[in-house]
Amino acid sequence: LLAEQTEALFTYSSALQGRKVVITAGPTREAIDPVRFLSNHSSGKMGFALAAAAQSAGANVTLIAGPVNLDTPPQVERINVISAQDMYEAAERAADHCDIFISAAAVADFRPVQAAEQKIKKKNGQDDAAIALIKNPDIVAAIAARTELRPFTVGFAAETEQLQAHAQNKLQRKNLDMIIANDVSLPDSGFNSDHNAVLVIDSDGCERLAPALKTNLARQLIDLIASKAL
Amino acid sequence: LLAEQTEALFTYSSALQGRKVVITAGPTREAIDPVRFLSNHSSGKMGFALAAAAQSAGANVTLIAGPVNLDTPPQVERINVISAQDMYEAAERAADHCDIFISAAAVADFRPVQAAEQKIKKKNGQDDAAIALIKNPDIVAAIAARTELRPFTVGFAAETEQLQAHAQNKLQRKNLDMIIANDVSLPDSGFNSDHNAVLVIDSDGCERLAPALKTNLARQLIDLIASKAL
Repeated sequence: LLAEQTEALFTYSSALQGRKVVITAGPTREAIDPVRFLSNHSSGKMGFALAAAAQSAGANVTLIAGPVNLDTPPQVERINVISAQDMYEAAERAADHCDIFISAAAVADFRPVQAAEQKIKKKNGQDDAAIALIKNPDIVAAIAARTELRPFTVGFAAETEQLQAHAQNKLQRKNLDMIIANDVSLPDSGFNSDHNAVLVIDSDGCERLAPALKTNLARQLIDLIASKAL
Repeated sequence: LLAEQTEALFTYSSALQGRKVVITAGPTREAIDPVRFLSNHSSGKMGFALAAAAQSAGANVTLIAGPVNLDTPPQVERINVISAQDMYEAAERAADHCDIFISAAAVADFRPVQAAEQKIKKKNGQDDAAIALIKNPDIVAAIAARTELRPFTVGFAAETEQLQAHAQNKLQRKNLDMIIANDVSLPDSGFNSDHNAVLVIDSDGCERLAPALKTNLARQLIDLIASKAL
């Protein structure tokens, strides 16, 4: 019995022993000019919790973080980025020799075609304007599309409606190994909350994880990812 | 001598005794959909420092704050807002019976014509997009344009070039009593810095205040505003 308990403890704490895990977290900011930007409400909490949980499970963790106000988890290597393009370049480099890639960041799909070098001035009597946008690189899809040096690739789907359908579609379209879906329109879930409730979808099916603190949920997710990836 | 020193101390600490001051601070966020928004790099530090300095000088202070990570200065009434429209409505109400209105917020000039109720989904193969914008209310200009219940109205000009010319133009165009201009492209000045260096412009001329901690600069500015406003 003692041996079993010891083994269980050991298994839990070292599910990712010696593995390299890369996690993206937080929003990206897309510059309109030196003062203004496009962004989103991602707090980075889920990605940072996953980084802490993966490190606790023995992994060597690189956390690529957009602009957030969060402390780096102990013994995690953090790379700070601002834009989706910066995050893409950092992710491509970091992913080359990792076992698991988890895209928890809320990456802007589009960015302004050109960021103005000086603050854009409103013209007298100007009542409307428009921002022309072009597509950003799709980071998680680029990693998942690799034919060489392809890690086990996990995406997130933050949705406000049709959660399972949108997530299932994203899993297949982007060739992901797993997708973690959450409804960010719920009051006590999603971007700015310390709690979350998610669906985990992979080729085996769909599993609902009960609402929990993001730190607890992160441990469950890391165990689940380790069991599927390795 | 002692009487003079006492008077100087008294004058400093009560320049705004019994006066009502309304200050806006921080950025605004303009919703694109439930997840995405337009915003800017304002940290709110200058506006919060002005609120603390005005309160220390004896004023009854209302601070209308956009989304920032700052503690409310002691004995200051804080009203939290998100969008320019919300800030406009709060400012119009608060300004009705104030002596001095200071617009330190970086209010978005434009907002998306319509905020989508659900997260906007990227279409397959969609390579570009556009956000149509309409003008937000000009809060400080609306206050300065009042013919009744018009407070002494102070604006800010955050510029990346032609600082004095742009600020002078804004002072006149918006009928302000004073404008405080800073170059937000300088590395140790402006939005995310604890320091700032400003030009103060009014009908009497232009004065340059030396670079200083925002908290110190705020005390100088409050003294200057009190001397001109009262």
